Amino acid sequence: MSQPDASREHFATLPEPPYYAVIFSSQRTAGDEGYEAMAERMLSLASQQAGFLGAESVRGTDGFGITVSYWHDEASIAHWRAVAEHQEAQRLGHQRWYERFEIRVARVERTRSKR
Amino acid sequence: MSQPDASREHFATLPEPPYYAVIFSSQRTAGDEGYEAMAERMLSLASQQAGFLGAESVRGTDGFGITVSYWHDEASIAHWRAVAEHQEAQRLGHQRWYERFEIRVARVERTRSKR
Repeated sequence: MSQPDASREHFATLPEPPYYAVIFSSQRTAGDEGYEAMAERMLSLASQQAGFLGAESVRGTDGFGITVSYWHDEASIAHWRAVAEHQEAQRLGHQRWYERFEIRVARVERTRSKR
Repeated sequence: MSQPDASREHFATLPEPPYYAVIFSSQRTAGDEGYEAMAERMLSLASQQAGFLGAESVRGTDGFGITVSYWHDEASIAHWRAVAEHQEAQRLGHQRWYERFEIRVARVERTRSKR
């Protein structure tokens, strides 16, 4: 058997599509450098934004991770990107926390699942 | 500093959008049960399909993982889904390997990156 508690925590509960996904793939630099606290704060802050639907995130032991956040529409993504505290986090992410990242913004059109 | 080799291996090299993403979030059951070998085989087989652009994947120690595969169009996704050997893997995934999964098919519209 697996981890039902982990499962409940990890999966986002989302409405029917269409909605938007921001797929963030990243390679962390070595060392924390304030990253974990900021990541937690950004998830908390994002979840308070209009149009935020949920997020799923995982990072492997070698520092490669994928976070997918889900949003009602492109306007809510643009708004979140412009939030001042998030802009400071983006700046530090670029300078300090990420060796490399790729962000892909996509419109979710259909889904299926096993639950 | 981080892991340049890991970084090169993890990131997909993709064309300019638009293209499609299949976002596969999953919670593994306990035990391998043939999973690792099949996962490796499916990535190899997928990469031989027409329209396959690349994939990025990470799984945490608690068994939650995200794999995003990228495809030229919806027809190539539908074709891959119907490949016989993949259908058998899908069946076993549903029965044996995944406690839960969510699949979201999305059209990638724009990207940005740090490289």
